[in-house]
Amino acid sequence: MPESNVLPLLLALDFGGTKHAAAVLRAGEKQWFAHRRAFSPPNANATTDLEIMRSLIHDLLQGSQPAAIGVSFGGPVDASTGNVRLSHHVPGWENIPLASLLSKEFGVAVSVDNDANVAALGEHRFGAGQGCDSLMYITVSTGVGGGWILDGRPWRGADGMAGEIGHTVVHPKGPLCLCGKQGCLERLASGPYMAQQVRETMQRFPSRGQGVRHFVGDDLEAITGEIVSRAATQGDELAREVLETAGWALGVGIGNAANLMNPQQFVLGGGVTKAGVNFWEVVRRVARETALPEVNFEIVPAALGDEAPLWGAVALANDLMSFS
Amino acid sequence: MPESNVLPLLLALDFGGTKHAAAVLRAGEKQWFAHRRAFSPPNANATTDLEIMRSLIHDLLQGSQPAAIGVSFGGPVDASTGNVRLSHHVPGWENIPLASLLSKEFGVAVSVDNDANVAALGEHRFGAGQGCDSLMYITVSTGVGGGWILDGRPWRGADGMAGEIGHTVVHPKGPLCLCGKQGCLERLASGPYMAQQVRETMQRFPSRGQGVRHFVGDDLEAITGEIVSRAATQGDELAREVLETAGWALGVGIGNAANLMNPQQFVLGGGVTKAGVNFWEVVRRVARETALPEVNFEIVPAALGDEAPLWGAVALANDLMSFS
Repeated sequence: MPESNVLPLLLALDFGGTKHAAAVLRAGEKQWFAHRRAFSPPNANATTDLEIMRSLIHDLLQGSQPAAIGVSFGGPVDASTGNVRLSHHVPGWENIPLASLLSKEFGVAVSVDNDANVAALGEHRFGAGQGCDSLMYITVSTGVGGGWILDGRPWRGADGMAGEIGHTVVHPKGPLCLCGKQGCLERLASGPYMAQQVRETMQRFPSRGQGVRHFVGDDLEAITGEIVSRAATQGDELAREVLETAGWALGVGIGNAANLMNPQQFVLGGGVTKAGVNFWEVVRRVARETALPEVNFEIVPAALGDEAPLWGAVALANDLMSFS
Repeated sequence: MPESNVLPLLLALDFGGTKHAAAVLRAGEKQWFAHRRAFSPPNANATTDLEIMRSLIHDLLQGSQPAAIGVSFGGPVDASTGNVRLSHHVPGWENIPLASLLSKEFGVAVSVDNDANVAALGEHRFGAGQGCDSLMYITVSTGVGGGWILDGRPWRGADGMAGEIGHTVVHPKGPLCLCGKQGCLERLASGPYMAQQVRETMQRFPSRGQGVRHFVGDDLEAITGEIVSRAATQGDELAREVLETAGWALGVGIGNAANLMNPQQFVLGGGVTKAGVNFWEVVRRVARETALPEVNFEIVPAALGDEAPLWGAVALANDLMSFS
């Protein structure tokens, strides 16, 4: 990599649960200079995660020095210190001072935040939320999480826990969530829970879900959120019902959040939001019905897809530069 | 009033739905120099409201000049311009440029915001929320509304509509709210709706609510939220059930708001929150159960009571001074 270029290099890192990514770009540019991805091994821990990331970084930088590093981490982080609290997927991350580790190793300032906040920042600066002063980014995938941009800046909450829309209750008589409550948005709208709902209904009523069986045969364990989406698109009634319930739950959650915070925009990402126009129609209609008429907002698809956390990490790195 | 005092005078105004208040204090002090209240006449409109307020002001100031004016208004306001959008209680307030009217009349800077936001600011600067960087103020009275302080400043939302926790849905199969939705927090927890719930149950089941009848005899129209509270305190089963449902609804709404925004504190004011320890116990327990374990917050009673909007108006006036 040429050392002579005048624009400083920004390094963006994304520690996901099962896959990692790293990329570099020149400050102010909107295209990656170089980009690398890697999957975690089956028995990953914090040490192997860090080793994988180091090898991606060295491969990318080839001896160049970044001017700042931004990091998205898939789990709770104290953004003020850059200390990871834990990972829900990978052991050994408890209380790891990630910002300080990387800062010592590379000799530059490092900013770390959790993936939902960083993705919100990414969509705000480089994606669907450009020009929008206030937005909530929501990812609907294996879980349902979110991050806020208010007044153009991340709002993380007093304990860094803001954005947990997945565990707002939208139906107090609804099914039991892993968190112990009934009717959490995540319990009704996440991919694995939609799959579980379809699976359990097919076990009780074997005549239902013929369109789902088309994909998995008798192996009901093989049902995924994506298969539910595809079966719904092809007209399976059960899959449509479950997807409609998911859209309804998401619409109520968004409408409630709109009444509470009145942001300009909700940006939706994650696999479940690729479920097609019916799903989006339900989400938009129910959110509109749930919010008061005077509360305006738009609901738009995320523009950066899986790269939202990396682009948010660029924004974090960039902000470090402007303070230095 | 002596003109010689060196500290400038701040004028605080509270345009309520049925009563108005005005007060002056010396900047930096925490006690009223003088304070006046007045009720609206039965057929009040914007003109009579303004006349009443003018007479309170002239009585207070007696020719002195305030350095700045802060105003709480009981209805939607564009806080950036100080234009009132409307009053839900009093006709004629549509699009009245209140800040500009007062500014011309008194020759000083004027800041206007709606009562929930101003009360939140009042509790933050002078009441239960002192020293707290992020809080939601919630009033549970004839309606259920709220205002946010985030990073020490009011968060009003893109349309000035943030804080409408009363119209978040907490039970999608619940009773119909005036707004057209089912199971809004306000529909389950406001004083008039609690009274309605008790009244309708007594009409259908005349043996119920004997403790309520003790207060109103056969005049079920005379039931109010306060009577429900008092009957509950004295052991009436129906009143207790309705109050417990209100507490449950408020707890779910607060827990959901905690998961979304993670503020340090919820400050509760309004008549319904005077319902006693049982009510508070239910609110706190359900809010704690609804929020994720990692989301910390406290729920505290408002400290300023009916004066919260006036004190918030002082804060608005004070902020005008520091910008001038």
